[in-house]
Amino acid sequence: MPTEFTVTHRVQFSETDMAGVVHFSNFFRWMEEVEHAWFRSVGLSVAMLSDEAHVGWPRVSATCDFFAPVRFEDEVKLTFRIVKLGNKSLNYEVEFSCNGKRVALGKTTSVCCQLTPDGMKSIPIPPTIRQKLESAA
Amino acid sequence: MPTEFTVTHRVQFSETDMAGVVHFSNFFRWMEEVEHAWFRSVGLSVAMLSDEAHVGWPRVSATCDFFAPVRFEDEVKLTFRIVKLGNKSLNYEVEFSCNGKRVALGKTTSVCCQLTPDGMKSIPIPPTIRQKLESAA
Amino acid sequence: MPTEFTVTHRVQFSETDMAGVVHFSNFFRWMEEVEHAWFRSVGLSVAMLSDEAHVGWPRVSATCDFFAPVRFEDEVKLTFRIVKLGNKSLNYEVEFSCNGKRVALGKTTSVCCQLTPDGMKSIPIPPTIRQKLESAA
Amino acid sequence: MPTEFTVTHRVQFSETDMAGVVHFSNFFRWMEEVEHAWFRSVGLSVAMLSDEAHVGWPRVSATCDFFAPVRFEDEVKLTFRIVKLGNKSLNYEVEFSCNGKRVALGKTTSVCCQLTPDGMKSIPIPPTIRQKLESAA
Repeated sequence: MPTEFTVTHRVQFSETDMAGVVHFSNFFRWMEEVEHAWFRSVGLSVAMLSDEAHVGWPRVSATCDFFAPVRFEDEVKLTFRIVKLGNKSLNYEVEFSCNGKRVALGKTTSVCCQLTPDGMKSIPIPPTIRQKLESAA
Repeated sequence: MPTEFTVTHRVQFSETDMAGVVHFSNFFRWMEEVEHAWFRSVGLSVAMLSDEAHVGWPRVSATCDFFAPVRFEDEVKLTFRIVKLGNKSLNYEVEFSCNGKRVALGKTTSVCCQLTPDGMKSIPIPPTIRQKLESAA
Repeated sequence: MPTEFTVTHRVQFSETDMAGVVHFSNFFRWMEEVEHAWFRSVGLSVAMLSDEAHVGWPRVSATCDFFAPVRFEDEVKLTFRIVKLGNKSLNYEVEFSCNGKRVALGKTTSVCCQLTPDGMKSIPIPPTIRQKLESAA
Repeated sequence: MPTEFTVTHRVQFSETDMAGVVHFSNFFRWMEEVEHAWFRSVGLSVAMLSDEAHVGWPRVSATCDFFAPVRFEDEVKLTFRIVKLGNKSLNYEVEFSCNGKRVALGKTTSVCCQLTPDGMKSIPIPPTIRQKLESAA
């Protein structure tokens, strides 16, 4: 699946820490930022109705390897790539680069769930959603 | 209303910024931290049912004056005081001190609201909730 | 001072809370986002050297009034306006609007400081910085 | 290395998201919270001087698997365990549990670095620091 989708994130002051660099937890928020922008780019939202059911994508795993720090006002390029589109799950990776250099690599597994007042239950990705994900991928 | 309620917050690394001090936005999160701890101390929660209705307390105003910076691993004392308990609203202030010195002073106005799927609507504070708030104040 | 500067912020999932709306503390982070973008637009940075000294702008006061909630994926327009440029301080306000409706209004006072390893000391705004701030205002 | 160290974290409102549960990025902040509390418990700080050099522990990898959601006001038990203490690096894991149930498992690799104004450089863990880490482990 060769799909690739990119957004740029300008590092905010509130994202830095006393070491003078971006706090590592923000890379996980940025992974979500480009994921959701990608959903929007294919006409979807991560918080949406599908056939009248509330569908969401909770994460079951998230990981990130850090190669170099990024700093205030840096423009970080976030490149989103689908690794695997399963029956109920979605694996993707995000490459973070800055000034042409790869600074981090993140990976996530999300599971398609129906959200109810009582909690959430994994479901096969609904056909109308799958179709859009596949057409983009 | 002389009520006073105190919790201590240890400054986390992720709350600092590249200036080497706590980012100012965290003081607003800490104001909420002691507010909610106070609600719990009187047997309430800010996210609760009252006579089967979902009741919440959205803020209409929040302000903070900053007198001195606080740093990683500081223990910040958060002192909560009710300023006014109105018909529908709650005014409180939070004094932030560190090593015996006042470092900031925050003020907030929250409005009692009924939460519905369509949004929120201000309501008079329900009697069972008011009673607990007053008994503490 | 009629200067006005605007950026747009797309609401991220991580900025929402369990009430289904943006957590109020994020408005303070967004105030800083447009402030710093404005500094960049006039050729400055809030974290900069001026005549070999590290200059910063810690806040002494921040306040926000909230008129309506904003939600996931909303595009919030942040309009920055200088209210007063003093000898050592900067007062500005930020108007938050969404779908043509004003949703919040924030105000901040920042003080120009020289940053040293020992702490920070307020200083008159250096002439080279003042000139750029005034030319924009 | 059987060392185990535990702190409890009360879930704050600002840590929840519109799905009504804790946003996943906060688990990474909590991993750091218990790590730093453990450092303090052995008489160290992650931001410290050692033989006059500034020593820090940037992460090169962080991962978390999520088994069940946690919610507002839950008390989450964070159990820290050293997995490996290398020449220059520290591997640890954090088990997150709530009401006696394991809800997540995180893992991190940090590298001991000397911090200079120009950046950071990995160094062998200084003997005085290593001694304290080992005595605890």
